[in-house]
Amino acid sequence: MKTILVLGAGRSSSSLISYLLDSAASFGWQIIIGDFSLEAARAKVGASPHGKAIVFDIEQEEQANETIALTDVVISLLPPHLHTVVARHCLALGKHLFTASYVSDEMKAFDEEARKKGLLFLNECGLDPGIDHMSAMQIIDRVKDGGGKIISFESFTGGLIAPETDPENPWRYKFTWNPRNVVMAGQGTAKFIEESQVKYIPYQQLFKRIVQITVPGYGAFEGYANRDSLKYIDTYALDGIETMLRGTLRNYGFCAAWDVLVQSGCCDDTYKMERVSTMTHRDFVNAFLKGSKTEAPEDKLMRQFNLAKDSPELLRLAWSGFFTGEPVGLKEGTPAQILEHILNKKWALQPSDKDMIVMIHRFVARIEGREKTIQSSLVVKGDGSVSTAMAKTVGLPMGMAARLLMLNKLKSRGVVIPTGKEFYEPILEELKEFSVEMVEREG
Amino acid sequence: MKTILVLGAGRSSSSLISYLLDSAASFGWQIIIGDFSLEAARAKVGASPHGKAIVFDIEQEEQANETIALTDVVISLLPPHLHTVVARHCLALGKHLFTASYVSDEMKAFDEEARKKGLLFLNECGLDPGIDHMSAMQIIDRVKDGGGKIISFESFTGGLIAPETDPENPWRYKFTWNPRNVVMAGQGTAKFIEESQVKYIPYQQLFKRIVQITVPGYGAFEGYANRDSLKYIDTYALDGIETMLRGTLRNYGFCAAWDVLVQSGCCDDTYKMERVSTMTHRDFVNAFLKGSKTEAPEDKLMRQFNLAKDSPELLRLAWSGFFTGEPVGLKEGTPAQILEHILNKKWALQPSDKDMIVMIHRFVARIEGREKTIQSSLVVKGDGSVSTAMAKTVGLPMGMAARLLMLNKLKSRGVVIPTGKEFYEPILEELKEFSVEMVEREG
Repeated sequence: MKTILVLGAGRSSSSLISYLLDSAASFGWQIIIGDFSLEAARAKVGASPHGKAIVFDIEQEEQANETIALTDVVISLLPPHLHTVVARHCLALGKHLFTASYVSDEMKAFDEEARKKGLLFLNECGLDPGIDHMSAMQIIDRVKDGGGKIISFESFTGGLIAPETDPENPWRYKFTWNPRNVVMAGQGTAKFIEESQVKYIPYQQLFKRIVQITVPGYGAFEGYANRDSLKYIDTYALDGIETMLRGTLRNYGFCAAWDVLVQSGCCDDTYKMERVSTMTHRDFVNAFLKGSKTEAPEDKLMRQFNLAKDSPELLRLAWSGFFTGEPVGLKEGTPAQILEHILNKKWALQPSDKDMIVMIHRFVARIEGREKTIQSSLVVKGDGSVSTAMAKTVGLPMGMAARLLMLNKLKSRGVVIPTGKEFYEPILEELKEFSVEMVEREG
Repeated sequence: MKTILVLGAGRSSSSLISYLLDSAASFGWQIIIGDFSLEAARAKVGASPHGKAIVFDIEQEEQANETIALTDVVISLLPPHLHTVVARHCLALGKHLFTASYVSDEMKAFDEEARKKGLLFLNECGLDPGIDHMSAMQIIDRVKDGGGKIISFESFTGGLIAPETDPENPWRYKFTWNPRNVVMAGQGTAKFIEESQVKYIPYQQLFKRIVQITVPGYGAFEGYANRDSLKYIDTYALDGIETMLRGTLRNYGFCAAWDVLVQSGCCDDTYKMERVSTMTHRDFVNAFLKGSKTEAPEDKLMRQFNLAKDSPELLRLAWSGFFTGEPVGLKEGTPAQILEHILNKKWALQPSDKDMIVMIHRFVARIEGREKTIQSSLVVKGDGSVSTAMAKTVGLPMGMAARLLMLNKLKSRGVVIPTGKEFYEPILEELKEFSVEMVEREG
């Protein structure tokens, strides 16, 4: 019996696992769900006769080996640094491996051996990276097939909240993904191409140099540049492209308010603060601001960052409780850890909350001497706190790819990402059945 | 015969070595100067019959051991990370060790053993750290002896250029010390005490949150906070102090112009830039700025950082040649390396240039319920490109301390810094003979 092993039964695994269990029912496969917590794995299997929950710890080498030996494909939802451990087992045992994570240098090094052994190590097959690659390549290939050339490509993706969630939240944001990554976002210089030149944006400018974005039917957003927009020029075969920018999407106004935290130094993760156990939210902010402790932090922020009292930036910070005398509630921490802890008091997802994914590509293509813009956007709302938009868009592409492999429809081998037609055509098509569909406009 | 070994015959060693040779003549000692370059060592010994130049490489363990075995005190002017290697030899052979560098954790770990063996490992005995410790402790001890308490202490030191040097240079600055350290200055969060609270200034705010400073007879300066102002609270026995800030001093207007480079991302040392071999100064600046390459970088800077066309910031950047089409002249480099290379074209010290050291302490003391300010400042001008102010103020304190030790006038043992009376009283007194003298004003 064909067997798929899913490692990790966390929050983002639900859509993937239920898709795989459905496929297993159709084709007579078995799905094994392995997690530290047997309970979590069991909850995901539910009543399905095609699933099996097991305790799994990748560090228990012998057990990991025995489990993987019995499967055909391993889908790793483990933290990225563990993918290489899984990959070594897969190579030794001749098993395929799928992840939604960026291809690390270690993973890249497995390419030759995987290829030789006829194995597919598919990475970056989630949302971002994942659906972004597939939906972009579909347009890029179409333009090229039509004799055109892409001269500009900008792409932004964000995990936000649905309009009906938390309507009074001025950030229009909650933690729908790893909170630490949100707090640390953008530390390190962003690199992109503009007018055929390589340009750099340091952290201290990142949230100021934003791009305005309108998504038809969904209003105003803004984007800030991701760390490295250059690395996909080769992958997407966009040699000689004049503008190339990949970024993160947020609701209008988010970046200006977030920038106040960045400029103050609140996102720093390089040292532990003093006297944390007695610190209030207000003390936390005050520690970074110029001026006397008798002055309100709002006033100091106004002066230091040239903000009006009723500015949207101060409104957002006040909503998040930064100016209150509430104790932080940690014994110790770096500024970034304390910031995450304070933000989480208002930004933690509640059971009734719905998340929303927004992705947008903007291309300029040159065809027979004329320039044409192509805009392609995707909006996916979650169904609730289990079947979130994040879980759907990250999990389903991997599930669909695994199914294609099982049905012998994938020829690629080695360490790859889903930029080829054999991936994007069937997967983007099937995603439509789950209301995950790009909407295109040409201009 | 008593012997002092000086390791390193670089630019900053001249005053130290000539002081030691003079002492050697008076007391019949021998001074050995060891350097990679025999020529450099010989140049420093000159015609003195009391000096001996040798080739020395601390990595040649056997030779290092033999050389150190023949001496009484080792003065290490080597790069700071090599002091611990020297220290291990000194411990093994029972020799005293002097450096002008900050006490590293590794050095601190030698304290007990040095103490047991009756050895003095004196560190931070140069200018900053060095003269700053001694001159501050002299005042602190005096206030305490008079029944007072120091409630505020701010201290700033800078290595600048003399007024007659390069009069048209609007920065009033040149590289009189390690250029890389100047370019990298302030990366990492500064920590200080204000109103009894610990406050933090991140890099992106550091050159904006400056302190205005007037030095009697020398005009307007400004200071930015050093990385950690807290660590000397214990050392100086200033427990309970309400304000404590140590910083770097620059001429008025320096920080605002430097901040434009910081904010742009030009001081980043974490990645290599692309296409460096064909890059001009103008290209370098453009790579960090928002806007089209057809627009002048000056205009982009004006817009992005809200500067007037004739602002002092743009004037300084223009003087440094940032807007010219001159090739950078490097094959590769990080932004920080390229910035250093461009700056060095105008900031390299010329033989006719004179440097100038400025140090200032500002205390507030509470004595019998009344508050009193005490200001103490030091200005030292170099005599030229060999006997620089930097060489004098860094080297002489170590030379004088070595002489005191040879004359059995120092009781301290173990890993110490010169905060005790037995150091600061004789050394500050003797420094006056070299026109290195603090000027005090009370208010």
